[in-house]
Amino acid sequence: MDNFHFYSPTEFIFGKNTVIECGKYVKKYRGTKVLVHYGSGSAVRSGLIERVTKSLDLSGIEYVLLGGVKPNPRDTKVYEGIELCRRENIDFILSVGGGSCIDSSKAIAAGALYDGNFWDFYTGKAKIEKAVPVGTVLTIAAAGSEGSGASVITKEEGMLKRSTGSDLLRPKFSILDPELTETLSAYQTACGATDIMAHVFERYFTNTAEVEITDRLCEAVLLTMIKETPRVIADPHNYQARANIMWAGTVAHNDIVGVGRSQDWNSHAIEHELSGLYDCAHGAGLAVIMPAWMEYVYSHNVMRFAQMAVRIWGCEMNFVNPADTALNGIRRFRRFLFDIGMPINFEQLGAKEEDIPELVKKFGLGDGKTGGFVPLSTEDISNIYHIAAKTEI
Amino acid sequence: MDNFHFYSPTEFIFGKNTVIECGKYVKKYRGTKVLVHYGSGSAVRSGLIERVTKSLDLSGIEYVLLGGVKPNPRDTKVYEGIELCRRENIDFILSVGGGSCIDSSKAIAAGALYDGNFWDFYTGKAKIEKAVPVGTVLTIAAAGSEGSGASVITKEEGMLKRSTGSDLLRPKFSILDPELTETLSAYQTACGATDIMAHVFERYFTNTAEVEITDRLCEAVLLTMIKETPRVIADPHNYQARANIMWAGTVAHNDIVGVGRSQDWNSHAIEHELSGLYDCAHGAGLAVIMPAWMEYVYSHNVMRFAQMAVRIWGCEMNFVNPADTALNGIRRFRRFLFDIGMPINFEQLGAKEEDIPELVKKFGLGDGKTGGFVPLSTEDISNIYHIAAKTEI
Repeated sequence: MDNFHFYSPTEFIFGKNTVIECGKYVKKYRGTKVLVHYGSGSAVRSGLIERVTKSLDLSGIEYVLLGGVKPNPRDTKVYEGIELCRRENIDFILSVGGGSCIDSSKAIAAGALYDGNFWDFYTGKAKIEKAVPVGTVLTIAAAGSEGSGASVITKEEGMLKRSTGSDLLRPKFSILDPELTETLSAYQTACGATDIMAHVFERYFTNTAEVEITDRLCEAVLLTMIKETPRVIADPHNYQARANIMWAGTVAHNDIVGVGRSQDWNSHAIEHELSGLYDCAHGAGLAVIMPAWMEYVYSHNVMRFAQMAVRIWGCEMNFVNPADTALNGIRRFRRFLFDIGMPINFEQLGAKEEDIPELVKKFGLGDGKTGGFVPLSTEDISNIYHIAAKTEI
Repeated sequence: MDNFHFYSPTEFIFGKNTVIECGKYVKKYRGTKVLVHYGSGSAVRSGLIERVTKSLDLSGIEYVLLGGVKPNPRDTKVYEGIELCRRENIDFILSVGGGSCIDSSKAIAAGALYDGNFWDFYTGKAKIEKAVPVGTVLTIAAAGSEGSGASVITKEEGMLKRSTGSDLLRPKFSILDPELTETLSAYQTACGATDIMAHVFERYFTNTAEVEITDRLCEAVLLTMIKETPRVIADPHNYQARANIMWAGTVAHNDIVGVGRSQDWNSHAIEHELSGLYDCAHGAGLAVIMPAWMEYVYSHNVMRFAQMAVRIWGCEMNFVNPADTALNGIRRFRRFLFDIGMPINFEQLGAKEEDIPELVKKFGLGDGKTGGFVPLSTEDISNIYHIAAKTEI
């Protein structure tokens, strides 16, 4: 086990009818004038924004509204938010939405207190040194941004998708009401579930030996997702399954399932170019990329993939030919994704095989140095895109 | 799943040679004059206190020392610490030791800023409203106090063992260096492992349905303990096994494996009277009590015990007679405890069956209302003590 630092100070308020508490928690964290940041009109139409602002009113907190965050949140909206924060002397940002909205809120939070261009944090040119405190009211179980210090933003010009991270961006509190997720479509729900599982797999495939506790915690989240996701796809109003998935999504990404070892994250990076170029859902892109990545790298550590197959997918261990077990586990993963309605190849995703050279070029990281499990060259990345392009069940 | 609140703001610094960082973290949390609180002379003899004070010196932090915390930490030492804190204007408490030392530190932290008697917090007479910040350098993997808001203190007069809890008692930071635990005896190590497993079981046996994520996280910690504990008993210098156990101990008790449902805690309460009366190790007492409690209550929910047997102990499910599987799981648990060197009955623990009426009387809680899984009457508690008294492998 490697040395590590683990810090997850976010206060989680979980369950039915918890939205009403947001005013109380903004007050606890000394917010007096709040930017309420949200995404699509559905947050308004469903009455959620009204519930939020009513709670703020009851706590005597002023606020301004900024909606319009898109999936794959854009830098343009971040600039708008930063300007608004400065103009209105905002001292707290309340994010009402899913990962895109929270990531946009975090970018605004860091950018509002920075003299330069906030994009510097996403190119590595600058380090976040202060940020406006952020709280969240989560509406989609997926990104885990409600409990993480990470943020992913897409630069509209050229659709470049880049990420940053800092403990300063960790939300002060996150309100998680599973009922808010009941209106999501089966497709959105499945995209979220895929993202959650991918967050765990990025941490599961490691070169660090002897981290049994982290392995087992990874497996705990994955087994939960395998049980609960089909139940929600079958019945969107299954509160219990929604609740399990929502909390699993948070646990999957506050790094409790990743400490003490190297992590990979190549699948995420490879996928980002897909959702950057085609503006598809991140989870759908991961469903196409991650099993292809697994097939491409599994021989690097056959026994680790066999462990996944046996412990997570319930495969029988083939003691004569462990590679057979490993591949069987990968097949089961892809089949699971297909069964919950995810695309499994480029065509189903709306991507084109002839764009692969462009995708690889934009990736810009295929220098054989990225990826904590198997570092990939540009050729490797191209090969993975090609596997992903043509896969069939 | 029930609504819940989860908050674990402690900053964890984990791994080899991390003790040297304690000065930096005390400074980060604005400590300027520190009470260094520790237990036995071994912390001095091993040079650990010197390493700690050297780190404080390097950060320019003043300190006073207070050693002598005993296992089952006493109120008398707490009073001494409170007086010292007030006299010396202490603004941070650094606890260097195991759960007893941390619990004593927390009691001092709350008591130093309270006008009344700190024991009020342990009788329920008063609620903790402020506390001196606490940091820890952990030397035993067991109590989980390094990541929890709980504290257990024994009142010397009458050896009454009582607990309290508050988010205000959660350590600001905890330094976890598994190498510090390598000098523990096999017996101390096994006691710690038993305590860790008991913390999970208290949360595993619940009447709340449909909390798969929490079930799976419980199982993750238990499976880790079952793998790693015998390795450490066989080789006290197995760093990897020590590291897995140390982190499992923290995860077992910051409540990430307990959210969203009722918990039991009767075994802990029943055990507290044993270690209160005989001053035995808490873990050893749990090894005697917890399997007895399981045997006594398993028929309340046979399938839950069968789940434990299958998922944790690897038993075959007996589909014709699930009770057989349930009992088999309990037997495996007791056998595991025996194999790692724990006592399994009163005689091995140094307790006496004829004291049971006194134990039950002191318990004072057997009103049929305590225990989130199965509420127990005084008669039930007496019966459990009798099972525990006479058990054989």
